[in-house]
Amino acid sequence: MSSTGKTSPHGKRHRRRPSRAPAGAPPGRIVPQPGAAPTRLRLTRFTPDMLSHAVDLDAGLAKGLPGGLWIDIAGLADHTRIEALCSRLGLHPLSVADIFNTGQRPKTEVYDGYVHVVLRQPHAVAPYEDEQLTLILGEGFVLTVQETPDDCFDPVRQRLEAGGPRIRDSAGYLAYALIDALIDSYYPLLESYGEHTEDLEDRILMAPADGTVGEIHRLRRELLALRHTLWPQREAVGALLRHDVPFVTDAVRTYLRDCADHSFQLMDMLEVYREVAQGLVDLHLSSLSNRMNEVMKVLTVIATIFIPMTFIAGLYGMNFDRASPFNMPELGWRYGYFFALGLMGLSAAAMLALFYRHGWIGGRKGAQPPAPGTARPPGEDKAPPAGGRPGAK
Amino acid sequence: MSSTGKTSPHGKRHRRRPSRAPAGAPPGRIVPQPGAAPTRLRLTRFTPDMLSHAVDLDAGLAKGLPGGLWIDIAGLADHTRIEALCSRLGLHPLSVADIFNTGQRPKTEVYDGYVHVVLRQPHAVAPYEDEQLTLILGEGFVLTVQETPDDCFDPVRQRLEAGGPRIRDSAGYLAYALIDALIDSYYPLLESYGEHTEDLEDRILMAPADGTVGEIHRLRRELLALRHTLWPQREAVGALLRHDVPFVTDAVRTYLRDCADHSFQLMDMLEVYREVAQGLVDLHLSSLSNRMNEVMKVLTVIATIFIPMTFIAGLYGMNFDRASPFNMPELGWRYGYFFALGLMGLSAAAMLALFYRHGWIGGRKGAQPPAPGTARPPGEDKAPPAGGRPGAK
Amino acid sequence: MSSTGKTSPHGKRHRRRPSRAPAGAPPGRIVPQPGAAPTRLRLTRFTPDMLSHAVDLDAGLAKGLPGGLWIDIAGLADHTRIEALCSRLGLHPLSVADIFNTGQRPKTEVYDGYVHVVLRQPHAVAPYEDEQLTLILGEGFVLTVQETPDDCFDPVRQRLEAGGPRIRDSAGYLAYALIDALIDSYYPLLESYGEHTEDLEDRILMAPADGTVGEIHRLRRELLALRHTLWPQREAVGALLRHDVPFVTDAVRTYLRDCADHSFQLMDMLEVYREVAQGLVDLHLSSLSNRMNEVMKVLTVIATIFIPMTFIAGLYGMNFDRASPFNMPELGWRYGYFFALGLMGLSAAAMLALFYRHGWIGGRKGAQPPAPGTARPPGEDKAPPAGGRPGAK
Amino acid sequence: MSSTGKTSPHGKRHRRRPSRAPAGAPPGRIVPQPGAAPTRLRLTRFTPDMLSHAVDLDAGLAKGLPGGLWIDIAGLADHTRIEALCSRLGLHPLSVADIFNTGQRPKTEVYDGYVHVVLRQPHAVAPYEDEQLTLILGEGFVLTVQETPDDCFDPVRQRLEAGGPRIRDSAGYLAYALIDALIDSYYPLLESYGEHTEDLEDRILMAPADGTVGEIHRLRRELLALRHTLWPQREAVGALLRHDVPFVTDAVRTYLRDCADHSFQLMDMLEVYREVAQGLVDLHLSSLSNRMNEVMKVLTVIATIFIPMTFIAGLYGMNFDRASPFNMPELGWRYGYFFALGLMGLSAAAMLALFYRHGWIGGRKGAQPPAPGTARPPGEDKAPPAGGRPGAK
Amino acid sequence: MSSTGKTSPHGKRHRRRPSRAPAGAPPGRIVPQPGAAPTRLRLTRFTPDMLSHAVDLDAGLAKGLPGGLWIDIAGLADHTRIEALCSRLGLHPLSVADIFNTGQRPKTEVYDGYVHVVLRQPHAVAPYEDEQLTLILGEGFVLTVQETPDDCFDPVRQRLEAGGPRIRDSAGYLAYALIDALIDSYYPLLESYGEHTEDLEDRILMAPADGTVGEIHRLRRELLALRHTLWPQREAVGALLRHDVPFVTDAVRTYLRDCADHSFQLMDMLEVYREVAQGLVDLHLSSLSNRMNEVMKVLTVIATIFIPMTFIAGLYGMNFDRASPFNMPELGWRYGYFFALGLMGLSAAAMLALFYRHGWIGGRKGAQPPAPGTARPPGEDKAPPAGGRPGAK
Repeated sequence: MSSTGKTSPHGKRHRRRPSRAPAGAPPGRIVPQPGAAPTRLRLTRFTPDMLSHAVDLDAGLAKGLPGGLWIDIAGLADHTRIEALCSRLGLHPLSVADIFNTGQRPKTEVYDGYVHVVLRQPHAVAPYEDEQLTLILGEGFVLTVQETPDDCFDPVRQRLEAGGPRIRDSAGYLAYALIDALIDSYYPLLESYGEHTEDLEDRILMAPADGTVGEIHRLRRELLALRHTLWPQREAVGALLRHDVPFVTDAVRTYLRDCADHSFQLMDMLEVYREVAQGLVDLHLSSLSNRMNEVMKVLTVIATIFIPMTFIAGLYGMNFDRASPFNMPELGWRYGYFFALGLMGLSAAAMLALFYRHGWIGGRKGAQPPAPGTARPPGEDKAPPAGGRPGAK
Repeated sequence: MSSTGKTSPHGKRHRRRPSRAPAGAPPGRIVPQPGAAPTRLRLTRFTPDMLSHAVDLDAGLAKGLPGGLWIDIAGLADHTRIEALCSRLGLHPLSVADIFNTGQRPKTEVYDGYVHVVLRQPHAVAPYEDEQLTLILGEGFVLTVQETPDDCFDPVRQRLEAGGPRIRDSAGYLAYALIDALIDSYYPLLESYGEHTEDLEDRILMAPADGTVGEIHRLRRELLALRHTLWPQREAVGALLRHDVPFVTDAVRTYLRDCADHSFQLMDMLEVYREVAQGLVDLHLSSLSNRMNEVMKVLTVIATIFIPMTFIAGLYGMNFDRASPFNMPELGWRYGYFFALGLMGLSAAAMLALFYRHGWIGGRKGAQPPAPGTARPPGEDKAPPAGGRPGAK
Repeated sequence: MSSTGKTSPHGKRHRRRPSRAPAGAPPGRIVPQPGAAPTRLRLTRFTPDMLSHAVDLDAGLAKGLPGGLWIDIAGLADHTRIEALCSRLGLHPLSVADIFNTGQRPKTEVYDGYVHVVLRQPHAVAPYEDEQLTLILGEGFVLTVQETPDDCFDPVRQRLEAGGPRIRDSAGYLAYALIDALIDSYYPLLESYGEHTEDLEDRILMAPADGTVGEIHRLRRELLALRHTLWPQREAVGALLRHDVPFVTDAVRTYLRDCADHSFQLMDMLEVYREVAQGLVDLHLSSLSNRMNEVMKVLTVIATIFIPMTFIAGLYGMNFDRASPFNMPELGWRYGYFFALGLMGLSAAAMLALFYRHGWIGGRKGAQPPAPGTARPPGEDKAPPAGGRPGAK
Repeated sequence: MSSTGKTSPHGKRHRRRPSRAPAGAPPGRIVPQPGAAPTRLRLTRFTPDMLSHAVDLDAGLAKGLPGGLWIDIAGLADHTRIEALCSRLGLHPLSVADIFNTGQRPKTEVYDGYVHVVLRQPHAVAPYEDEQLTLILGEGFVLTVQETPDDCFDPVRQRLEAGGPRIRDSAGYLAYALIDALIDSYYPLLESYGEHTEDLEDRILMAPADGTVGEIHRLRRELLALRHTLWPQREAVGALLRHDVPFVTDAVRTYLRDCADHSFQLMDMLEVYREVAQGLVDLHLSSLSNRMNEVMKVLTVIATIFIPMTFIAGLYGMNFDRASPFNMPELGWRYGYFFALGLMGLSAAAMLALFYRHGWIGGRKGAQPPAPGTARPPGEDKAPPAGGRPGAK
Repeated sequence: MSSTGKTSPHGKRHRRRPSRAPAGAPPGRIVPQPGAAPTRLRLTRFTPDMLSHAVDLDAGLAKGLPGGLWIDIAGLADHTRIEALCSRLGLHPLSVADIFNTGQRPKTEVYDGYVHVVLRQPHAVAPYEDEQLTLILGEGFVLTVQETPDDCFDPVRQRLEAGGPRIRDSAGYLAYALIDALIDSYYPLLESYGEHTEDLEDRILMAPADGTVGEIHRLRRELLALRHTLWPQREAVGALLRHDVPFVTDAVRTYLRDCADHSFQLMDMLEVYREVAQGLVDLHLSSLSNRMNEVMKVLTVIATIFIPMTFIAGLYGMNFDRASPFNMPELGWRYGYFFALGLMGLSAAAMLALFYRHGWIGGRKGAQPPAPGTARPPGEDKAPPAGGRPGAK
């Protein structure tokens, strides 16, 4: 899993795409994958009344048996066995090759006698990684091939065991149930991105730290990668709905429509997060500019207050020969020192007045827009904060 | 309401989506919602001449009665009762589940025997929150299910009671009237956003305060969320118009066309606000840069005027041994002090001249573009201000 | 006019949309408009050979008369009279309501027996304001309803009086002539925006003043509002062309195609201005940064030249006890003062050399790109300026 | 030419659109153009074997003659003569008006009996100006009307004289040859823009000069104007291909497909330049920020090194009464001066160490990315520069 | 190769497009290319059982022979020979001209009797350069013409020699195999861009160096150029699939669908890189702003700490006549010096407290967001770094 998760064409680090054949190789050539997980094969034959786990492959695949069959493969290591099974099912060589070529984008392709659906299932919650799931729906059987044993199909397996409503009706309905489970497993992932986005937002508004810009960038990259998975996945599910796809009955189609709907909703959520994350860049740049303004104001206020005062002090530190009555008579005044201090105080007061008029110091700046910090009626859905920013007092 | 309003997929804070079934659950499974409002059910049977509020559910739902029936449900708490009613009406399990799955995007779906429309109605004016409204139009009946008792349908109820023109004609017309009322309830919301945008604009142009950037960001988020509601809503209304939707007569279709028109207009207004809000980001950044320029100019002007003067003062504060006639003879001049003051004055004048030539001080900057503050003929639709910016005098 | 002009959904200040019915009101309900202009009604009956202004409404509207009829209404105050006239013409209630609902976007709708076209006509040249024009083309008549008596139809009226070519041919041709006049009245408006854009451009390149950013923002808002009028207007005219619209003959259609062409050209011009205005934001930000750079350079050059010199002056202003031969022997040197002055001069020269090498002072910066101010062959269509920037000399 | 070139709706300076009729004027009204070039008319009658330049207009236009006819008009001054000719050819009044209305966007319109194509031909290489070319293809004749005698058709004329392959086959092929020549004349124009873009790029990377931002802006404006010409031109050529356009045989259609291909390629090149020019804005802003950083660093380094030293000098310049043994005993130390100098040196060294650690001075900054100036393997296709930036040594 | 690689319309430096005929030249005119590579021609006739390399051109091209023929031409120097061959194959003059016109965008055109496909094959890995490949698929033959002998077809040649599965089946399958090899040769190129993007990203986050902005710009330009090649290439391959293209059997079409899939995946990868590269601009600007903030903070902290201290030192350096008891009595105090030092210490402490409260110094800034540097759970897929940034210690 850890290795194949990196073979996604959109993942952040995909230093190797091990399962892609070299350019010019014949199509259908299968490239053995070094780190592939060991193959685990499960056959489940079911009718509405009965469920059996076939141990014998030949008996399990025998045609003409009633009900449906789910061939559930995890791990691509034993590729000769998988290939043999595929050729027994009559799959096209390209179709077989696609099972092993694990870096594909989601798609639905109709072959002679079956439908080949490529989907991607997410692994963990947040650092987005996914693996390829191939679902092949044929006459009376569903074949699923996934890269690792971890999946989101356990609830479906339980319903199949328990014989819940409709789940044992047909292979087509089972295929729907599997696709639906996979699509729905994106919701927690997207919600964790939503929370991460909000968290970043709050932190930027509070204080733009040094690593924030890198974090926003990574967030945008991951949402981008997710988009390039979800977009074709939506189309793959939609294609099952639209086309004259065989083995998909009208009853199942109604359920698949619901599933396509969820795909749309996921895209919608994702697009919102993406646009918000894009807005975070502007927010961050503005915050940086704000900060810079603040820094500059402090420097300017302090420097310009003291610069004239220091000049006056320097003036009366000159060593002109006071023998001449015209040379710095102030030095001889009885209250010369106070005169100088007064001059300094005056210049400082003038500067302060200037800054006050510009709104750089004192409360005047805040007074112009009526209470911008507290009363922003629309665009604020939090309860009024109990004590404002206490640290600012 | 407060809880469900947060389950919108686009809302700002949607920490839980309580009504979504876990991934892999069978479709149609209804998840009880912890904080759902108590269920209130109203049945209204009407013909052009008569109106009756059925108390008895069975009598009210009896088929074959003349006229139309409005089943008006608010609050999802009593889900067994709602489910029973839905199965009496012959709704598809997915359709029933969608009623309880309150975080859906607007859509129109045609089922066997009825049309299922999902819409979202806004709650308050400004901090955008909405709830799901399911409207099901079947043969002779309209079923509306909303999350909370508050809604925008009171005018429709009054017209129905009063027997206004056309309102009691058919279930289809009633459905139109309800949709129209819902669509129109977005106008005040959008107008409040428009006012908020203008308010922000004015404040940024006056003085960019600290919290402004956060406010712009929130505004953009809410408009974005609104867009992801209004866009599919427009399509849902348009779908009613375009498709061979049953139970929508040509006469009603003409009215629905007007309603779809309003949806377009809402999108139009929203897109304008969104683009303006995007422009506010540029405006704010420019304002910040402007401010920074101003701060830097003040620092530069004051620092560079005093720096040479302070240097001269320091120069004549040196303690060279005046025994040598070459060491600072100025100190012994009769008018040495005035000479030094003159030097300082000269340097200050030179600096001031430099700044004046660059247009940093004095009126020259303002003189280049002809009266930029007052006479901007196009792009200004306010009456000429009586006294300009008086504080600037 | 002044009041209704503000009811545009896109206008800058639309504090009220007086003519919109409250949400939930029955469709077709007409809301009296408080500040509506008094109604003025003109009937013109014409054949190619004859023209008469009917005074009597009943006689004028009598069916079966030869030729065409133009019912020209301005001002919506007398709504009972207008409603009566509309119902005589057999208009649909929604159509009548749309006449009074003055904030609509342009559209073309085909009703039973007539075509309803909503257009917007611009008022003044620059601060963009428009009013709604409803044009209804039926069997042998054209009804135009505008909000105020001012319009752009006087040339059409004169041609109708004078009996110019084709103008009295049919009601369809008259409708074309009116639409054409309205579309063409946008050209001067757009040209004034073009001039304003160029003017802003020149001013930003010369010297970015304080109010410029607000002006750019307003310009972009107005162009945006204009776009949301012109875009659907183009479609409304195109719809007249494409659909199987009744009462539009093939001959008239050829002329309307020309009119649709002009709509396209207007959109084209507008999009150019919009993109240029968007570019102005970048231009302005760059100019601000340029300015800031300039300010910072001046500060840096002056401060860093004087800082070491002031330090040296301070050094020799120390009061170490020169009894020790190691304490500041320079003070006792015969040419100590000149030595100090020389040190200062050296440090200043070193700084100047540093700045010169960085290209901050002197002509080196300008020398690198070959004559950037004068010889930019492409991208400059002005005649070579006679004397460059004379003020810079 | 110089006057009409400025009437393009997209041109940079279009202070007048002299050939547009006033709003409300009847369609087809021809507005005399004050500065129009004098009319020059050439008739060329050709068959594959023969070519004659008719002097007599009537004889030249006589119907029923074998082969094709090219009526080649340049200059719109003599509009009565052109109108007479057009009416002899049976052109629609709108079509005639379009010939004189020189500010139109490219289009293809099918009239009864002929095809009306409006194209725009570029004038000079770089400051983009174009003029309108009307090409009318009818039964056996091609009419071209251009605003000025300068055009790009000389090679076609030579091939026609010389009787090259296919050129005298039919009027349709001649029309193709003319359109092809016009489309191809955009290549040098686009290439000059490409070179200008690269030139700007190099200059920005070297040193962002003051006028650069204006130049980028102008470049973007011109590319924008060019786009609004090329885009509809592509469609106009494509329309000739797609529609059931009369007088265009299948053989000619194959050639026109090649021509449409070139239009696509031009758009492609243009879009690349446009995106690159957009990137130049970012590049320029980054360069400005880089510059500012550099300026600030110099100021910071020099100021912060000298500020503590100056403070120490000031400290020992205080005049405390050394009668008290606690007042500045350092002044009386034997090596007090060296002590003070040592303090200053220490503080300077501390500052330098601080800056070195931040990577502001010394080679550490450049050392982190491995040789960013020379070894950027991808994204660099120049030969390794012989000596780097020599001036930086 | 080196010369023609520069003739791409999108390449970075395309100072000449040698193979384009001058505007107005007759179509089909072939322009001799000065630096074209010498022509090398290989004929391979194959049936599933047999393979022969014909030496004699006439014998090789003879019609009616069994199996398929691959005419493999590299180098365009000997254009008379290539033209002769093309006319023997019955190609249209435009088609022949397109072979020599090496700057074309990818396209698929159906001529009478054959399909003309233009593709572009990449040369080296990173500084993107490509050459034109013309593939003509006719009845029983494939003609490929490339500009230089280097290509990506060696694996196909080996499979053809070795007689791998299906490769000798038909000319159509061979054409697919060639196109597939070409498409797949873009993967390493794109992956190298992916690595370059990540490398740039890391470097910007670490320390934005001076040349980075230029590198980002170049990267974006190359990705843009690549996009303008891959986009039409995808369409060209798709066109082979969609149209009723002759000589493409259904079996081959299934394989081509796989090939079109790869084209889509390449576009997907490219769009991700392009968006990431666009994000790098924001990242870089933010980093620059961050740096500037840091520089300013250092300047501000040091300057504002020392400015008041220097002022105090200057104050007690004044030379007021201490004869007056009011003139600077502090100078005479026993602990005056310590008093002054205390004042200075106080002011420094006050400044430090101010900066600490603003979070500019000390650990408070980092403390607000909880451990932003280490614990960013989502958006970080690296293993936790062993020792953080060691260089920062």
